[in-house]
Amino acid sequence: MPDFIDIDDPADPRIAVFRDIRERDLIGREGIFIAEGEVVLGTLLRSARHRPRSILIDARRRASLAPLLETLDETVPVYLAHRAVLDAIAGFPLHRGILAAGECGPSITPEELLAPEGPRIILALSAIANHDNMGGIFRNAAAFGAAGILLDSDCCDPFYRKAIRVSVGTTITMPFARLPAGADAVALLARHGYEVLSLSPAGAEPLAGIRNVPRVAALLGAEGAGLPASVLERTRTVTIPMAAGIDSLNVATTSGIVLFALSTANG
Amino acid sequence: MPDFIDIDDPADPRIAVFRDIRERDLIGREGIFIAEGEVVLGTLLRSARHRPRSILIDARRRASLAPLLETLDETVPVYLAHRAVLDAIAGFPLHRGILAAGECGPSITPEELLAPEGPRIILALSAIANHDNMGGIFRNAAAFGAAGILLDSDCCDPFYRKAIRVSVGTTITMPFARLPAGADAVALLARHGYEVLSLSPAGAEPLAGIRNVPRVAALLGAEGAGLPASVLERTRTVTIPMAAGIDSLNVATTSGIVLFALSTANG
Repeated sequence: MPDFIDIDDPADPRIAVFRDIRERDLIGREGIFIAEGEVVLGTLLRSARHRPRSILIDARRRASLAPLLETLDETVPVYLAHRAVLDAIAGFPLHRGILAAGECGPSITPEELLAPEGPRIILALSAIANHDNMGGIFRNAAAFGAAGILLDSDCCDPFYRKAIRVSVGTTITMPFARLPAGADAVALLARHGYEVLSLSPAGAEPLAGIRNVPRVAALLGAEGAGLPASVLERTRTVTIPMAAGIDSLNVATTSGIVLFALSTANG
Repeated sequence: MPDFIDIDDPADPRIAVFRDIRERDLIGREGIFIAEGEVVLGTLLRSARHRPRSILIDARRRASLAPLLETLDETVPVYLAHRAVLDAIAGFPLHRGILAAGECGPSITPEELLAPEGPRIILALSAIANHDNMGGIFRNAAAFGAAGILLDSDCCDPFYRKAIRVSVGTTITMPFARLPAGADAVALLARHGYEVLSLSPAGAEPLAGIRNVPRVAALLGAEGAGLPASVLERTRTVTIPMAAGIDSLNVATTSGIVLFALSTANG
């Protein structure tokens, strides 16, 4: 059971990590991330890779959160603040009343992510810069049991606060790895035995016709720009047929459709 | 070709409809909606049902937008403002530099929406209150050529600014109708000959197994609450199988997966 520590002053240095979190969303780059809400806090507390550094909750939620916090290492401080103080710390009305600062565990290398053998589905993302889309893609990957997500160097950080929230905490649990700038994702995936499918409105094969791809990587690029020609030329290109006049789907939605189709294709 | 009118004062009453639009997002309820950006403006100008009332653009975009505005009825004023004035009017930095006020055309009744005969896919939404989700659902419906969207009385307005933006303007083109409070969507759909499928994590049939439903309505409820038991009891219930520990997908993503699967099932 943790020690509960009352906080009365929004300027208290002990809760500095939670101050004005909207304005400081680059915080993920320092190896710390911010988790919001009970579901995501629970995910963080169960994580084997990442760990909580401190927790800040609405004082009125102390009793209801006690079961969740019971197993918490007692070196992790749990700060309690009344609603007005909490909102002043966060910089906006914190309806959920729960913030946790998480410490990123050791990152996974692309080799570690891709090496495990056998049937599995991987997503490989190119230049996904929007945090809502990143969070949505992780949520879908978790929902359909994908084995992991490979990010290129132009993708945004899945540990940004908003990406974590939209992902419903799955960026904490879903294994992912980031490629260095200039790395050749297609060659790396092929070397590890993945069938590589590039999603593109101009793709050659309809998604619904894909069969027998037990070990597969689906490549997704940003809406608008899409995947680079150098990738499309070297891979099987796959399209989701759309109505006339519509040229693309949201990339998170696309990830859900692709994962559904591949899960179905593989039984 | 329209008359261009210079605006130098953010308080000018002629552009009042565009003032502080973020704070006034209830404006759709007055029969006026706000369209942002060139793509959505183009959609509005081509609409047979709705029409532009006035347009406000960054003065620097006058030349590049001339082809689009060429066919505009000359009674529709096009206001020009320099960037600083534009941002002061809108209340935030207006990167796209284009706002249009649209006048809602006559609404479509549920009977009008559902009556056309033959094979078609309809979405029926229950209590979708989030504008991002509403916009995403419309975008997917348009992408997969759905015939229309039926909203219950607890759904938010598809003409809210953010819903229009996320929908990439498809809320302007996709036919939709709203049911009065207490209306029985299931009975109405059945009377019009639709096979009614309710999406639910606890659904009896997997989505991938659905076949031969040329005239079909897919019912979607809000995440969390889902569809009411009274609906599930009276319809075929359909599930999207998910990994252990994950109990739901985002509802806009779900709509994309369902539309993909039904389009595929119907060939």
